Amino acid sequence: MGRIVFVDGKYLDEQDAKVSLFDRGFLFSDSVYEVTAVINQKLVSWKGHIRRLRRSLKELEIALKISDDYILNLHRKLIDLNKLKEGLVYMQISRGVADRDFSFPDPAVEPTVVLFTQERALINNKKIKSGTKVLSFPDLRWGRSDIKSTQLLYASMCKQRALDQGKDEAWFVRDELVTEGSSNNAFIISKDRKIKTRSLTRDVLAGITRESVIKYSKNRGYIFEEKPFSLEEAKDSLEAFTTSATTFIMPVVEIDGFKLGSGLPGKITMELRKLYIENIMKELV
Amino acid sequence: MGRIVFVDGKYLDEQDAKVSLFDRGFLFSDSVYEVTAVINQKLVSWKGHIRRLRRSLKELEIALKISDDYILNLHRKLIDLNKLKEGLVYMQISRGVADRDFSFPDPAVEPTVVLFTQERALINNKKIKSGTKVLSFPDLRWGRSDIKSTQLLYASMCKQRALDQGKDEAWFVRDELVTEGSSNNAFIISKDRKIKTRSLTRDVLAGITRESVIKYSKNRGYIFEEKPFSLEEAKDSLEAFTTSATTFIMPVVEIDGFKLGSGLPGKITMELRKLYIENIMKELV
Repeated sequence: MGRIVFVDGKYLDEQDAKVSLFDRGFLFSDSVYEVTAVINQKLVSWKGHIRRLRRSLKELEIALKISDDYILNLHRKLIDLNKLKEGLVYMQISRGVADRDFSFPDPAVEPTVVLFTQERALINNKKIKSGTKVLSFPDLRWGRSDIKSTQLLYASMCKQRALDQGKDEAWFVRDELVTEGSSNNAFIISKDRKIKTRSLTRDVLAGITRESVIKYSKNRGYIFEEKPFSLEEAKDSLEAFTTSATTFIMPVVEIDGFKLGSGLPGKITMELRKLYIENIMKELV
Repeated sequence: MGRIVFVDGKYLDEQDAKVSLFDRGFLFSDSVYEVTAVINQKLVSWKGHIRRLRRSLKELEIALKISDDYILNLHRKLIDLNKLKEGLVYMQISRGVADRDFSFPDPAVEPTVVLFTQERALINNKKIKSGTKVLSFPDLRWGRSDIKSTQLLYASMCKQRALDQGKDEAWFVRDELVTEGSSNNAFIISKDRKIKTRSLTRDVLAGITRESVIKYSKNRGYIFEEKPFSLEEAKDSLEAFTTSATTFIMPVVEIDGFKLGSGLPGKITMELRKLYIENIMKELV
């Protein structure tokens, strides 16, 4: 241990980094977060992350007074203090500290702001070579997965159940259609080489990586369809992958025991990953 | 302020009561809780609360090593230290502190245990005289409301929306049937004087007060039906009420703008409240 983390205006050793027991993030999951990838000590897709953070806060009616520039500087300072070359910055904002009551504090209290870093190999992620094995679960999460809240218990439970069964990742299924993964968006490539991912509704998070992948690959002539696909369709697909801020594009090689193609990361998936990395490298801030 | 609260083995002033930023309760809502009412410095329905706490922990696979007796003593000590005559003890247990990862910490870490008290008039709750006005919302909570987890964001948001519209309470509706309230079970009394509440499924919490009310009133000859009822049925009912650990039996006088009966707390509801209080007074521990 020994990271420097940010808690409510202070840079502290992680051992001393604490929030009040009465923080509504702890008592009510009344908080939102963002995870931004770091490469070469710089932030990936910053504009997308700050835009989504503002949207999440608005949905929860949390009034955060600090500016986008200030938030960007918090991220940069934490990267500096921790000499972080590659990994991520995690930021969480809760409604703040108040005696426990289901209603929001009135008058409003100051939101709690915390940030910390994690070092991680993103570009040379070892998991890319083998790809991931997916297990599906009924999507029992709340009905507003478009809000990046910390209500992550079910996603965490399913991820763990997948691991317990020797798999790597959990995908959620609602009304027989795949929504998304435990902390990523789900994509398939059909045998006629169409790339599919669920359209944006309240059932899925508007992934920043998802958005970038669609943009970059459409520019390169890949055919994208934003529409729901079934679990059966996924098992029968040519390739599949997930996208997230820190795994970028991660090949999926098995779904519920069904091997996709040869059971190795797909060719198109790896092309898309290369394309994605090339493009984000031009937009680091 | 100035309460003494319990955090991981220590009794602290509430100002100093903090949990790690890396607590999974804060990052993932990976925690469960119980609220136990206190009357005359004693606990109400203790056996039910400790039984439900153990069940919640089991569902989350959190291994808590402390005994039921130890937990009871934590409650009693906190009542003593705060000279609490009437109110509640809140207890929350999270999976513990670990660097952020969707999978559970391996090896497991020590769960975080926190308790605090709130002073509140329970028997002479002022709200009883007027009763509460309810507003309904689609039930967008996760699909395991039978587990008393801290994923309470949506319940909190709906409670606040009800208050913003001059009402008091939120009821959730799934497939046109009422599930429960934001932090209570929902009951109606039909015009033929049958008392109805939803049967226990994964959609509702097995309320301890709910259980007691059913037991006590069946003994007195009231007719109970445990089965789902619709919002339309509720609006057309003779009386309605909610049950929870700290409000006991709370009359509902209006649902989505529809006044029930005269718009005052119902006669049967008030009989049941009296019966409930008489009975719990015999079982304080």
